[in-house]
Amino acid sequence: MTVWRPDDPPRTRISTCLFRRSLAEFVGTGLLLAAVIGSGIAAQRLNPHDAGLELLENAAATAAALVAIILAVAPVSGAHLNPVVTLADWLLGGISASDGLVYGVAQIGGGVTGAVVANLMFGLPAVVMSAKIRGGPGVWLGEIVATFGLLLVIFGGIRSGRAAAVPFSVGAYIGGAYWFTSSTSFANPAVTIARTLSDTFAGIAPTSVPPFLAAQLAGLLLAIGVVRILYPAVGIRHKPTDVPGRDATVAPTAGADQSTA
Amino acid sequence: MTVWRPDDPPRTRISTCLFRRSLAEFVGTGLLLAAVIGSGIAAQRLNPHDAGLELLENAAATAAALVAIILAVAPVSGAHLNPVVTLADWLLGGISASDGLVYGVAQIGGGVTGAVVANLMFGLPAVVMSAKIRGGPGVWLGEIVATFGLLLVIFGGIRSGRAAAVPFSVGAYIGGAYWFTSSTSFANPAVTIARTLSDTFAGIAPTSVPPFLAAQLAGLLLAIGVVRILYPAVGIRHKPTDVPGRDATVAPTAGADQSTA
Amino acid sequence: MTVWRPDDPPRTRISTCLFRRSLAEFVGTGLLLAAVIGSGIAAQRLNPHDAGLELLENAAATAAALVAIILAVAPVSGAHLNPVVTLADWLLGGISASDGLVYGVAQIGGGVTGAVVANLMFGLPAVVMSAKIRGGPGVWLGEIVATFGLLLVIFGGIRSGRAAAVPFSVGAYIGGAYWFTSSTSFANPAVTIARTLSDTFAGIAPTSVPPFLAAQLAGLLLAIGVVRILYPAVGIRHKPTDVPGRDATVAPTAGADQSTA
Amino acid sequence: MTVWRPDDPPRTRISTCLFRRSLAEFVGTGLLLAAVIGSGIAAQRLNPHDAGLELLENAAATAAALVAIILAVAPVSGAHLNPVVTLADWLLGGISASDGLVYGVAQIGGGVTGAVVANLMFGLPAVVMSAKIRGGPGVWLGEIVATFGLLLVIFGGIRSGRAAAVPFSVGAYIGGAYWFTSSTSFANPAVTIARTLSDTFAGIAPTSVPPFLAAQLAGLLLAIGVVRILYPAVGIRHKPTDVPGRDATVAPTAGADQSTA
Repeated sequence: MTVWRPDDPPRTRISTCLFRRSLAEFVGTGLLLAAVIGSGIAAQRLNPHDAGLELLENAAATAAALVAIILAVAPVSGAHLNPVVTLADWLLGGISASDGLVYGVAQIGGGVTGAVVANLMFGLPAVVMSAKIRGGPGVWLGEIVATFGLLLVIFGGIRSGRAAAVPFSVGAYIGGAYWFTSSTSFANPAVTIARTLSDTFAGIAPTSVPPFLAAQLAGLLLAIGVVRILYPAVGIRHKPTDVPGRDATVAPTAGADQSTA
Repeated sequence: MTVWRPDDPPRTRISTCLFRRSLAEFVGTGLLLAAVIGSGIAAQRLNPHDAGLELLENAAATAAALVAIILAVAPVSGAHLNPVVTLADWLLGGISASDGLVYGVAQIGGGVTGAVVANLMFGLPAVVMSAKIRGGPGVWLGEIVATFGLLLVIFGGIRSGRAAAVPFSVGAYIGGAYWFTSSTSFANPAVTIARTLSDTFAGIAPTSVPPFLAAQLAGLLLAIGVVRILYPAVGIRHKPTDVPGRDATVAPTAGADQSTA
Repeated sequence: MTVWRPDDPPRTRISTCLFRRSLAEFVGTGLLLAAVIGSGIAAQRLNPHDAGLELLENAAATAAALVAIILAVAPVSGAHLNPVVTLADWLLGGISASDGLVYGVAQIGGGVTGAVVANLMFGLPAVVMSAKIRGGPGVWLGEIVATFGLLLVIFGGIRSGRAAAVPFSVGAYIGGAYWFTSSTSFANPAVTIARTLSDTFAGIAPTSVPPFLAAQLAGLLLAIGVVRILYPAVGIRHKPTDVPGRDATVAPTAGADQSTA
Repeated sequence: MTVWRPDDPPRTRISTCLFRRSLAEFVGTGLLLAAVIGSGIAAQRLNPHDAGLELLENAAATAAALVAIILAVAPVSGAHLNPVVTLADWLLGGISASDGLVYGVAQIGGGVTGAVVANLMFGLPAVVMSAKIRGGPGVWLGEIVATFGLLLVIFGGIRSGRAAAVPFSVGAYIGGAYWFTSSTSFANPAVTIARTLSDTFAGIAPTSVPPFLAAQLAGLLLAIGVVRILYPAVGIRHKPTDVPGRDATVAPTAGADQSTA
């Protein structure tokens, strides 16, 4: 599953532009994790005896923040904020392998930073490994469904030319999937890894991570297959989120950023 | 109420295109039922003694997921996800009888699959028939109102050329109607049938189904009458959801799919 | 406060077109009242001991339904659904006095019908006069603020050419104002009158109605003044909601309906 | 941090136009504070023993009202409603120093008025200084994060030409940030000052205000830096919110208002 190929252009591709795009992924994923973990801590403190209200508050805050974060950084990087989205974008021809790797590093780095910030905002140690075991066949199936649906929502929107609606549909989807999937819809390796660093409502024990990542990969493969049938190849490289006016113009190596005017 | 007419073209119409469209209906309705039943199970487990919070959580998750699912598959099939919508579309000249039948089969098959997936995600047997009796004159009136309003929202949006807003208005409507109709707004035969397969919060006993279907049909007839007055015939075949750029171009037999570019 | 002037054209203006528009107001206001009262009854039954959750459920359901209802009927009638909006539209030159009177009758008739339907859906007698006293200086001030804000939101959107966003901003505003005004934001004479007919969560005693109507009128006058300063006269007759493509074309007597194409 | 420079044109710049724009800021910020404090009082009264529900109700009402208020006044003034936004706009070249000062006065005056109205609506004395101490390193960090994210959302939307989505992204962001920041996201000096005037759920003791303002300034500086990297200078003066059709035409001294047509 390596996405680095030897015939890729050399490191010079990591231009200022890629720096900007990676910074957008870093900041965006950082804010996302601050939202996921921060709202989980607040919910846990304010409703310590009502698991339902805790999840309702966590889901509503995450969904709302996600809409805003995607809208804030999408014109720069596409607002993947999720290694599975970047991987799917690579498999569908939307991003080069080397750019995708840099995106992944930025996403995980941003996610870790966001988790630390959330802990510090609420007066906790910067990092406390979570002891919260999550798993079991039903939960892993939930994670497959969560990831499958997320990618269908993203790429169904992109490949039909309706990218402007994707920030809203992704926020709505995640808000719903927190409830309707038994895993509470992680659906994102960067989120999964970063959530090991907070022993609070949103945490996940490190030992529970590998099966989650495998389930996310399974959901990805299922989604790629269905997306290819429902939305046959569009023949051009595209960006997976709200990028008005440049849907058809980004070159494969993404050497030039055309998102701001 | 048969929608198959002997002078329809032969089976060759069931082309690759209809396969794609039916797959979209199958996947979309499947995700919808996973959302309806899955979020019902989660709500029941997390707030076992608060029926109000359970319905609030179930309604919010369903409405949010519905927005995302419609946006994800509408360009392929129109995102009916509901045999009553397909029937209304046929009565209003938007889909052929044979295509409509295939849609209905895909919707019910998808709904059943989604119900099974929801049960499995939450560690329940794949199928347990619901024992939850629902009915009575007030509830049936609620189901008439629910279906009437849903179709008015959908076709009012479509027939005035504002299809891009319909995914949001349908999600908002269903989220509200879960609360304001005494039936909690099934308003969908595929949903009604699939919800017999889970003996949980969202379930309905099989014996309660026939009057629900009759009430949905009554709501459909009322809606068709009002839509015809408010939005007189538009003279072309159209698709009932967000399909940018092809509103006026789909031929009656829908032999060619023009939704992706 | 009469809006009928002797030099208006005779009754022939009440054409088929006005029938269609009035039917839209009747159906829309009916669904709105079914949503307001129906969700209030459901909330009261499911959370009988939690006044906060009741209002949260009532507000969320009303706001969501309102977005959908406005989108469903706006191209036909402008989706006033509220005599105060119609009166403001007349004062700002958007509707004739005679049409406005017919709108008002349709709105009140629709509201009463919706209240009756809500009662019947939940197994209550068709009409039970409410015994719920509402009032006091703070509450009346709340109603002034509620009406002022509602009209600012509507006409601020319309007079700046952004009518497509008004269904969403009105729904959001009412959802918020249920909470932030001490009157829970009636802001609508048709709603106020119709809510006397249900002795449930959303009811209001008939004796409490006159000061509410007076406060709504005060909010209207304040709003007209502020709107005229912020958005100086636009010089054309317009429709106060989402009517794509005809913002500048409706004649003063509104004799022809150009909303559907 | 002074924004007045001696070489600015004299007071004649404060034209009728600036009066209109300042009135929009005054009314908008007034309604915002009425929403923040009013919904806080309502939540406190209806759920006196559930701090989680109180915050959920307060956050939902504030976010919804904010969307509507921004949409209502943005074409007139840009709907800053927040001295930090105006300061950032000045630093990024979008507003002159003198206009910005007038905006700030209008925002604070409007906020104070809104706080008084909220108190009166709920039958409280017009002003009661809050005794609610808020602070500590985690809370101040929360306020830095809250302000940083808010400005990234606003200017990311504006500088990429997607101003029409900003009312929705700002409302969503604030709704989420009430939960995910430990300070419950004041992120606005006018809001911070006005909330000292109500000894209720949303109040803040005057002694807690200075560190909040300092944290907001720190978040501002961080945001300016990141925005300048992600969205390099656009070379023209612009308005920070939903202003269709005039994004590129406002002169540096903003002497003429071109927002209404």
